[in-house]
Amino acid sequence: MKENQIPKATAKRLPLYYRYLRILNNAGKKKVSSTELSEAVQVDSATIRRDFSYFGELGKRGYGYDVQDLMQFFAKTLNDDQMTNVALIGVGNLGSALLKYKFHQSNSIRVSAAFDVNPDIVGRIVDGIPVYPMTDMKEQIAIQQIDIAILTVPAQRSQDVVNELVAAGIKGILNFTPARITAPSDVLIQNVDLTNELQTLIYFLHSGSEEETVAE
Amino acid sequence: MKENQIPKATAKRLPLYYRYLRILNNAGKKKVSSTELSEAVQVDSATIRRDFSYFGELGKRGYGYDVQDLMQFFAKTLNDDQMTNVALIGVGNLGSALLKYKFHQSNSIRVSAAFDVNPDIVGRIVDGIPVYPMTDMKEQIAIQQIDIAILTVPAQRSQDVVNELVAAGIKGILNFTPARITAPSDVLIQNVDLTNELQTLIYFLHSGSEEETVAE
Repeated sequence: MKENQIPKATAKRLPLYYRYLRILNNAGKKKVSSTELSEAVQVDSATIRRDFSYFGELGKRGYGYDVQDLMQFFAKTLNDDQMTNVALIGVGNLGSALLKYKFHQSNSIRVSAAFDVNPDIVGRIVDGIPVYPMTDMKEQIAIQQIDIAILTVPAQRSQDVVNELVAAGIKGILNFTPARITAPSDVLIQNVDLTNELQTLIYFLHSGSEEETVAE
Repeated sequence: MKENQIPKATAKRLPLYYRYLRILNNAGKKKVSSTELSEAVQVDSATIRRDFSYFGELGKRGYGYDVQDLMQFFAKTLNDDQMTNVALIGVGNLGSALLKYKFHQSNSIRVSAAFDVNPDIVGRIVDGIPVYPMTDMKEQIAIQQIDIAILTVPAQRSQDVVNELVAAGIKGILNFTPARITAPSDVLIQNVDLTNELQTLIYFLHSGSEEETVAE
């Protein structure tokens, strides 16, 4: 399957394309040219064509793309045509903010369970999401068929929690802690390190780089 | 200057190297081998060597790296040897969480001013950080010599705020809004889109990719 070999940078751009196509479709637009697409998502057309080429023939050159077809293709590719339940572990400052965060581009991603150790919130419903004790993690992850966890626990707790998540059958972790966590190779870890993002920005600012600024 | 040509992926790994070197240095360690470094930051040694090669000769092969020298080199490269004041625009859920967020790896990054339109918080000090009205943005950014802004306003307000930030002299924007914002080419924009991160993770999970999982 060709999909398996697409570069990470391409995969990261798919949600961008998809979101813009949904906006167009909602606006009743039928066709979109690669130039329009390029301007809207701020990715140059050569990159877009290369990205699309990983998925075979998605449109005819010179005729633009069929908005609905392309949107449905990406919905399927991104599994946005089925509900994905996600767990959030650690309802601290960042965790609480993420519980409130609208996963705006997607109707199909839903944080369905949160977990924490704090007795003040455990057993309660916070922003519509039940907060379970850590001891219920394995059970709830199984019952709710959750594959993906958002990790917002304190850094020093992170590896222990990851081990529990892996034992509970989690297959993907979005890691917001500064810790570099490890997991078996069939578990995907995606790190979102906010300090790194800021330091990288500061670095580019001071080095005067003309680096591409569009997110990879 | 060679620094100007380093790839973005390399730049994003520099804070990782730096943080680990600080930990080693605090622990009184003098030398570190490239194998140790590789295991700790979860980047393969070939990549580390290639990253380091952009900065010239940083150590002798077979002898490992001098921890303090290398740490100081990265401190300078990442401008962590001088204080960087940062502004945060939009003290909503995510903004509030980021005001509380400890930029753990760095003693030199500080959110020194926040801005919002909400009369309930404007004029108050939230988590040690003064919240100014939007109308004071230009003045405070000038007074505090702020180059970098964290953008956590509602998506529909984002481009207007970016235009104001650019007019106020901001040179780098860490964009947490889902909007694709535009700015003159001398202003760096780094996008952190949390829905994208989740969708990309879901995509990789379902495509069964054996893609590298370490953050770029």
